[in-house]
Order: sequence, then structure tokens, then C-alpha cells
Amino acid sequence: MSPKITTELLKQLRQVMKNPRYVQEPVQAYIVPSGDAHQSEYIAPCDCRRAFISGFDGSAGTAIVTEQHAAMWTDGRYFLQAAHQMDSNWTLMKMGLKDTPTQEDWLVSVLPEGSKVGVDPFIIPADQWKRMSKVLRSAGHDLVPVKENLIDTIWTDCPQRPCKPLITLDLNYTGVSWRDKIVALRSKMAERKVMWFVVTALDEVAWLFNLRGSDVEYNPVFFAYAVIGMNTIRLFMDGDRMMDPAVREHLQLDSTLEPEFKIQVMPYGSILSELQAVGAGLSPKEKVWLSDKASYALTEAIPKAYRYLTPYTPICIAKAVKNAAETEGMRRAHIKDAVALCELFNWLEKEVPKGTVTEIVAADKAEEFRSQQKDFVELSFATISSTGPNGAIIHYKPVPETNRTLSVNEIYLLDSGAQYKDGTTDVTRTMHFGTPSAYEKECFTYVLKGHIAVSAAIFPNGTKGHLLDSFARSALWDCGLDYLHGTGHGVGSFLNVHEGPCGISYKTFADEPLEAGMIVSDEPGYYEDGSFGIRIENVVLVIPAETKYNFKNRGSLTFEPLTLVPIQTKMIDVNLLTEKECNWVNEYHQKCREVVGAELERQGRHEALRWLLRETEPLARVQ
Amino acid sequence: MSPKITTELLKQLRQVMKNPRYVQEPVQAYIVPSGDAHQSEYIAPCDCRRAFISGFDGSAGTAIVTEQHAAMWTDGRYFLQAAHQMDSNWTLMKMGLKDTPTQEDWLVSVLPEGSKVGVDPFIIPADQWKRMSKVLRSAGHDLVPVKENLIDTIWTDCPQRPCKPLITLDLNYTGVSWRDKIVALRSKMAERKVMWFVVTALDEVAWLFNLRGSDVEYNPVFFAYAVIGMNTIRLFMDGDRMMDPAVREHLQLDSTLEPEFKIQVMPYGSILSELQAVGAGLSPKEKVWLSDKASYALTEAIPKAYRYLTPYTPICIAKAVKNAAETEGMRRAHIKDAVALCELFNWLEKEVPKGTVTEIVAADKAEEFRSQQKDFVELSFATISSTGPNGAIIHYKPVPETNRTLSVNEIYLLDSGAQYKDGTTDVTRTMHFGTPSAYEKECFTYVLKGHIAVSAAIFPNGTKGHLLDSFARSALWDCGLDYLHGTGHGVGSFLNVHEGPCGISYKTFADEPLEAGMIVSDEPGYYEDGSFGIRIENVVLVIPAETKYNFKNRGSLTFEPLTLVPIQTKMIDVNLLTEKECNWVNEYHQKCREVVGAELERQGRHEALRWLLRETEPLARVQ
Repeated sequence: MSPKITTELLKQLRQVMKNPRYVQEPVQAYIVPSGDAHQSEYIAPCDCRRAFISGFDGSAGTAIVTEQHAAMWTDGRYFLQAAHQMDSNWTLMKMGLKDTPTQEDWLVSVLPEGSKVGVDPFIIPADQWKRMSKVLRSAGHDLVPVKENLIDTIWTDCPQRPCKPLITLDLNYTGVSWRDKIVALRSKMAERKVMWFVVTALDEVAWLFNLRGSDVEYNPVFFAYAVIGMNTIRLFMDGDRMMDPAVREHLQLDSTLEPEFKIQVMPYGSILSELQAVGAGLSPKEKVWLSDKASYALTEAIPKAYRYLTPYTPICIAKAVKNAAETEGMRRAHIKDAVALCELFNWLEKEVPKGTVTEIVAADKAEEFRSQQKDFVELSFATISSTGPNGAIIHYKPVPETNRTLSVNEIYLLDSGAQYKDGTTDVTRTMHFGTPSAYEKECFTYVLKGHIAVSAAIFPNGTKGHLLDSFARSALWDCGLDYLHGTGHGVGSFLNVHEGPCGISYKTFADEPLEAGMIVSDEPGYYEDGSFGIRIENVVLVIPAETKYNFKNRGSLTFEPLTLVPIQTKMIDVNLLTEKECNWVNEYHQKCREVVGAELERQGRHEALRWLLRETEPLARVQ
Repeated sequence: MSPKITTELLKQLRQVMKNPRYVQEPVQAYIVPSGDAHQSEYIAPCDCRRAFISGFDGSAGTAIVTEQHAAMWTDGRYFLQAAHQMDSNWTLMKMGLKDTPTQEDWLVSVLPEGSKVGVDPFIIPADQWKRMSKVLRSAGHDLVPVKENLIDTIWTDCPQRPCKPLITLDLNYTGVSWRDKIVALRSKMAERKVMWFVVTALDEVAWLFNLRGSDVEYNPVFFAYAVIGMNTIRLFMDGDRMMDPAVREHLQLDSTLEPEFKIQVMPYGSILSELQAVGAGLSPKEKVWLSDKASYALTEAIPKAYRYLTPYTPICIAKAVKNAAETEGMRRAHIKDAVALCELFNWLEKEVPKGTVTEIVAADKAEEFRSQQKDFVELSFATISSTGPNGAIIHYKPVPETNRTLSVNEIYLLDSGAQYKDGTTDVTRTMHFGTPSAYEKECFTYVLKGHIAVSAAIFPNGTKGHLLDSFARSALWDCGLDYLHGTGHGVGSFLNVHEGPCGISYKTFADEPLEAGMIVSDEPGYYEDGSFGIRIENVVLVIPAETKYNFKNRGSLTFEPLTLVPIQTKMIDVNLLTEKECNWVNEYHQKCREVVGAELERQGRHEALRWLLRETEPLARVQ
């Protein structure tokens, strides 16, 4: 992978930073955040402005360009990738390391006195604006909104914003109608005494209306906003997608409805002016509820006294707790996904020794097997198909320049998932198609111990996920090892593969407590730069736990793995497992056999079934 | 324990809340925080205003009195105690429970429109003022500083502020002279480009000048502030203690010193006006460093643009990392403390069956044995000597009304510690002098497993203590049990038994990373209301850990127990321990034997030595 040459682009950007056509006053620094106007993690090509200017296309990162410097902040998952993709114009700022300055502190250290720092107010979240603005102001600088996006002014071949057809989801998939979701939302609004709720996150709009789209790759969402009043529903969305009879029927656009359920459809681009009108028409005590991560532009549309900002919206929290229909859908999706992976691994086992399977071939083959499954829609993220040293690049995606051939001498790490109409999957398995070294097995086994420690953890109701993070690391820590990423993220139901408000990470504190029905990933890892990567990931469902006692009647929770794909026993050093851990593996494999075995049988996939049976032979500990 | 009758006092307080002699405008609510002007946890009798008005004298709690209500916020350690000590005028607000409103939210819910909420600006920390003020303002109310403390106006027999003689500590105890501490502080100030540092916490003043006092019971501190400039040192302190030749010599008050080390001693009460003078004389860019927990009054003395506020001061952080002299002192103190406790437990074992030992008698006996040890100064906190149901009152202190007799039928919990000139101790042991039930042993063993999980944990450099909290709970959680307090706190070196900036608690996120040389407690517990309490507490030193590998060269840490008192093996259900845990107990007891045994021998305490040897017999697991 050769880095993008950005000398000319940076020159152009530095020119527009001083061009009165775009900025009222010259800006001495310009911030290019990662997200789009909805603070999405995965973004459409037209929103990949940070990748355009820097070459670094990981899912998280913020670029800041000053007259002298260009710097990129990203986290441990992307240190290697960013270093590979950026040319020498750029300085990599490794977030999470002790000596790395924050963006604000860095700006203060490099800017001349009284500088202006520009940013697109539609792209920067309000909470981030506030934090940066405060630090900059106290150092004598100013954060200023630049209405026209400066990257767009120099991006001559910027693609169009997508506007693809919609998918409607019926009750079998969603469990709750959009009307009932609106009713529940309004009751939360009444509780907090707010009159309006502004839906800015794309997955929240999709979830609320039981619609899905494909405007953004991997995330089944569509560009839209919604503003929900106690008696009105406004949906801001472009295109002819509203002409689709199925969508009109689903949203009951042509039916006689009680006025409070009548949806007014408005142009996507009119959200700011409509919101400004709402803001201007508020009576005292009429509050407007927004996420504190909504864009600075939309937040500013509501006068400060009328804003009610929370880190997590009621939709975000409701969406995270899956109902019975969604949970059953997720189970089905994971069984189908396991069928596809059994086929894949069986195929790899035969093909890898021939020396013809590259990372890209393997990824394509995984997609091919998944696409054979019922209700398959697309992948849920770019497949991480990585062998040997590529496995240590945590969010690696194979491209022709880096594409490595799988062999019987290197560890292979596959982190992949799909969107099915009934659920979203995300699974990582680490395999060896030859004979792993003792050291590789040792590291794999520590990671497995961490995986089991989280998966089998029992904890009281009300526990936040971040309190479980250290369980995943303990076995690694004992030997002086660790991994530089969180342990788990929330997973949507035929929605974004990463979603809030829960997760398992030492980095956050503001996560919402885990509740029965929430779904998260459990994915500890270990990475040795230049050598190999190991990660074991299941998607797990939070379920009530039976315990011997019940302190203060709080009740307990634990996890049930939804992912049912064998964990390669060849990689396990059984003598490093406790009896309990050994039993966990055997029971997990027994469940894979029963549930996925039955489905393989039903689909007539006999060879994959034989592979499954062989790979799920019980472990035996040497006593 | 009968509650304090507060009807008349509340009536008087509500009168002064409207009395123009004390308030510019009537206040509809008055906040009585827990602390003193230094935000101390342990306070002098003259500062026990919250206890005076409510009767509740636990170490943490905030009272708010409105015209209609009187409410008390406290945490899980004190729910039972507060309920016992307060009469029906008071509503107990149980912090940490889901449905308990914050103080601000509660005020907003009960106050009439446009209310004024009063508070003593010297008592409320600036960060808390800011948070409350913001919420109140956004709900149309005002937080206002009331200069005269309203409790003091009705507290007719309020005791005098103490002003006791000082103790000087030489290099054998402190390892670093006060001059070198000033030099180090000024270098931190230069790093952050601040010109002044205001020392507001009593233990920080004491640490900085290598002085100790006894103005506050249990904490060897004295009422003082200090303001350190790049070339000046001002110490604000009352009394003739400055006439003591030892103190004058120690501070070199009469020597010819470089001017930047010349200490100006000023009256304690002049801090505000002196600080206002400093604030008025600042040139642009001259910042003043304060803790964000300094009082609102002192913080306001410095114009906002000149303030540099941090949650932890450089003194707080330097003080937490003990040097070799301090560590050795702490070791010595803990050996002497163990000698006293071996004597005590040996004595209890003989006396308890006679039915004559009450909780108070046992506490007094513990103090007696401790006071026989070299360099004993005082206790480090009020001894928690509790048997049976009293053990479930987490911060119980025996008083005549509650005093229970120890028996062979109930669990006895003793949480106690002392100040020695060379170190501070804090140890909890839970004993049974008869035959514990299987259930009591089971619970004790889970707590022990949690204690060991923390004590034996290995974790990377840079890990914050809160990430270890769940290790202490895991065994309890597995059975549906838990405890409602943190797992550990920082411990001072002949200073406060609770100190920041590190600790082990799920409640905090802003703790500083653990470093070699820091000292914390490890004290999981289990409490069954109305039945018993179990806690096992050691003070432990953070030390480098040897590990097989060393990921990213970060290095690893672990803990070394400084406390060396046997853990009652009679209470352990050995079959619930893993082999590793069993070995930990045996190795710990072996060390108690060797180290404390030698000291018992040296002191000629042969009976206690025999007790120690018997109590440290190795555990044997049934295989």
C-alpha cells in the first residue's frame, strides 16, 4: 500500500483557508472530522473528506491542517494502517498513548496568537465543538464555523450523495410498528417535558420508521432526519423513494390517519431552516431534545435555553434492547452465518495448501457463501481477511497492494459479518492451516481465556459494560500482554454493526448499563506487529442469569453467544485452560454441533457438516 | 442509638434563611455540605455543621434544608447509620440507587419558581458550585453565596477551631526536604506555565512542609493554607505554633536563606484577602493553579481568565508516589501494627467466651496494644469494632447505645488503623470465635477470593485502579452477591488514611493511573443487613511485576501487601479456593510468620507469637 501524495491537495486547502470566497476571515487551521452530518461511523463516498485529504481511510480519525502542519489523530486499531496510507506531509497522533496531545492542546501549541480554527458546523458534533471551543478560547484563539465545506471546494470529482430505494420491514422482523415506536417515544418526551425530538442519527431514523436503505455501504440506512412533535411527524428525505407504493403503504402516507400519526415528508436539505422555524416558535418551557452529538449547526438552530441535550437519545436506548422478534431474527441470522463460515473454513482447509488462496479470494469466498443464505442483503463491514503480519493491522482490509497468500505457515484472521433481513452478524475466527507454534498457541489461548471470562461473566443488573473489560485482559496481563482496543461494541438488528449506548471498553465511562436483550460483541485479541494477529469474537446476547443468591433482589445477568462458529481447537493449549474454561469450550462446541449441524443437514451441506463435527470434538485436559 | 431531635433547630435555620442580617435576600433552600474550607473528609468538631443540624455524623453526606423539606444525601456505606441517627424531619437520599435524584434535580423538583439556594462559599468546592449552579440556573433558580455560615449563627455552643502544636519530620521519615519539594513543585509550575500555586488541602500543606499536626482527629494535619510563587512562599497559619524552636528551625525561619525559600507566615484568616491581592496584581498570561475542588470563595478570588484548575494538584500526585524512606516507614508501621493485632486477637480468643468483651472494650484494647508500639501517635480513623448485625453497618462506630457483646456465635469485624510517625495503617479482619456456619464461611471465602484477585493482579503500567474493581467482585457476582462500596483508596504516609489521586472503585473514572510506589487499600466485603458483615482489608504497595513477556515495553505492575495480619483460616471454605488462591494464602501467612514473628520474638511477646504460628498453619486443599 503506497501512501497518497497530498502535497498539492494540502497546498490547495491552505489556499482556500485564506480565500474570502469561502471564509469571512482567513483560518489558520482547518479541522476535517471523520463523520458526516449524522455523525455516522461508516460514511458514504461523498462524505469521505478526511480520506480524500490525507489518504487514511480507517473508520475513525480526525485531520487538522494548519499553515505549517498536517496531523491525524486515530486510535490503536489504526496506527499501522494510517502510517502506511499517509505521506510525509502528515504527522500521526496516536490516541491513547501517554504523550500524545489532544487536538486542542496541539492546536494551542502550534498556532500563532489569536488564530481562527475553522470547521464545517454540520460535521462537528456539538459536544466536541463545545470542548474544543472552550480550550481554544481560553488560549486566545477562536473556533469558527465555515459554512461551505473547504474540502468540497477542492474535491473536483466528489461523488453524488446516494439516494437508493428503501426496504420496508414488517412486524415479523421488527416486533413493534413504527406507530407504537412513536407512541413510546412521545411518552419518553412527556416524561422529560420536551415538546420536540430531533432524530439526527441515520440508524435511529431507520429504526424508528422500520425502514432500511443502502445509501451507506454496510449500514442499511438512508440519508434522512426526522423531527417528532407531540402531534406532528416530519421526515426529511430526498428522492423518489417516497413514490414506491410499498413505502407509501408502510408509512400509511395515503391513508386517513389521526393527525398525530400523519407523516409530513420534506426535503432533506430543509432540516436546518425547518428546525430554525421550530426554534423561533417555541414558547417558554417548550424544550427540544437532541443528542449532544448532533451537529453544531442543528444544535445552534435551537436557542440555548430551549435545548435538552443527552448523550444517548431515547431511541438509541430503546433500539439497543432487542425484543423477542428481533432476538429471534438475530439467532436465525447467526445460524445462517455459521453455515456460511463452516463452508468457508472447510473450503479453505482444502485450498490453502495449494497456495492459490489470497486474502481477497478468501474474503470473496466468504461473501459468496454468505450470499447463498436466505435474506442476505450485504456485508455488515469490510471483511478483514488477513494472514501473517497483516493480521496485526487491527482494522486491515486486503487491497491488491497488500494482498497476501494464505499458507500453512501463518495464522489467518478473518473478521467478517453480514446484514441479513433478520439480523446483523460480526464474527472473528483465527485459524492455522498447518501446525501453529507453541507461542502462537499460547497467545491464542490467553485471548480465548479472556473471551470466555467475558462470555461466562455473571454480573448484577445495572452493571455497565466497561466494568467487564478487564476480565477480557486478565490472562494476557498475567503474562505482560495486552491489546490496544476495546473488548466489545453494541450490535444493531439488521442495522449498524457498531451501535450505542452499551459496549465493553476501558475507554468509556458513559455507557448505559447492560440490560437483558442488549446485544454486544466479545472480541479480545492479541497482535504482534510484523508477525501475526489473533482475535476471537462472538456476538453475545445479554440474558438473565440464575444465581445461588440474589443480593438486594437486584437480579443478575450473563451472556449467551449468538455466534455459533467453532473456535479452532488446534490453536488451543489445553493445559493453559482451567477445567471451567475447558467445559465452556466443549459446551459451546456442542451447541454449534446441535444448532448449526441441524441447519447444515437441512441445507444438504454434508461436507461442511463433517468439518463442523470434526472441529467440535471435545477438548480433553491432561490432568 | 436514638435519632437527634432537630425540629427546633430546623425552625431556627429556616428563620435565619430569611433574616436580612445574614442573607441579602431570603434563601428558599440552604445547602450544608460535609466538608470544611479545605474539603477535608475528616473534620474538626467546629466544622461538623451537617452533623449538628441533622444528627448524622458519617464521613460523607450533604444536607439540604428548604422551607418544607430537609433531605440528606449519603452513600451505601451510611444508609443504615443515617437512618438511625436522623429523626423524621429528614428524608434519606440513598446515593447510587437508580431512583435517587441528584441534589440539583431534587431542588428543581421541590423549589417554588425563581428560588434562591444558599451555601457557604468557603465550604462548597468550586467544581460542585459550577455543576449545581448550572442546573439551578437553567431551571430558573439561583445558587447564591451566603458569607456568614447560617449553621454557625444558630450553633450557640460551637467549639473553637483547634490550633495544636506541630510535629516536624526529618529526612529519615520524609526522604525529601521541604525545600526540594518546593523546587519540584516550581518545576511542575514552570512546565504548565503557571506563576502561583495555591495549596488548599490540609494534607498537601502538611506534606509539602514535612510538618504534621493534630487539629483534626485521626488526620495528622493542621489548619493552614499555602501560596507558592516562583520566588515566594506564604504559609497561612494561626497560633503560637510558630514560636516552637523546633518548627522555626525546621522551616529555617531564622536563617539567612535565598529569598525564594524564605517562608512568610501569615494569619490563617488572611488567605482570601491575600489571594484577592494576588489576583488583582496578575499580568496577562500569569496563571494561578488551584485544585478544582478548592472552595468557591478562593477560586473566585482569582479572575476566571487567570485560573488554572486541575482535578489533582501536582502535590497530590507527588504525595501519592511514596519514596524509599516513606515505603520503608510504611513497612515498619505495618509490622508494629500487626504485632498489636496479634496481641489483640490472641487476647480476644481467650476473653470473648467469658462474655465480657463488648465492641467498645475490644476497640479500646486494640488502641491499647497499638499505643505500646514505637512512634505511635494516634488512631488513623474511628475504630469499626462490630459484631453480628452491627457488622453490616459499613462505617459503624460502637457507641454505648449500640454496644454489643462479642460472642462465640457471631462474626466479629474489626476495621482499624493507626498513625505512627513512620506510617499510616488501615486493616480489616473478620473473625469468628466459635464455629462459623457453612454460609458464613462461603461468603467469607468469596470475599477472600476477591481480595486475592486484586492483590495478585498483574496489570500494565498506566492502568487506572478503577479497572481492577471488578476483579474484587467476580466471585461474589458469580453467586448473585455484591457490596455497595468501592474496593480501595489511596493511603497517606503518616497522613490521611484516605487520599487521592488513585483508588480502586467502579464509581470513579478520573483516577490517576497506578504507579510503582503508590499505596492503596484492597478491601472487598459482603454485608447482610441485620445479620453480619465481612470485610478483608490489606494495605498494598504498587510494585513492578515480573512477567514472561513485555508488550510494547510498557512494563507491568502488581501489589505487595504491607499489612501482615493472619486471615482467619477457620472462616475459609478451602474447597472454594483454586490451587493458586490457596497458595496465595499460604505464602501470605508464611510471610506474616517470618516478618511479624521475628518482631513478636524481638518484643518478647511469646503468647501472641504462638497465636500467630497457629493461625498461619498452611491450608490444605482436599483434591
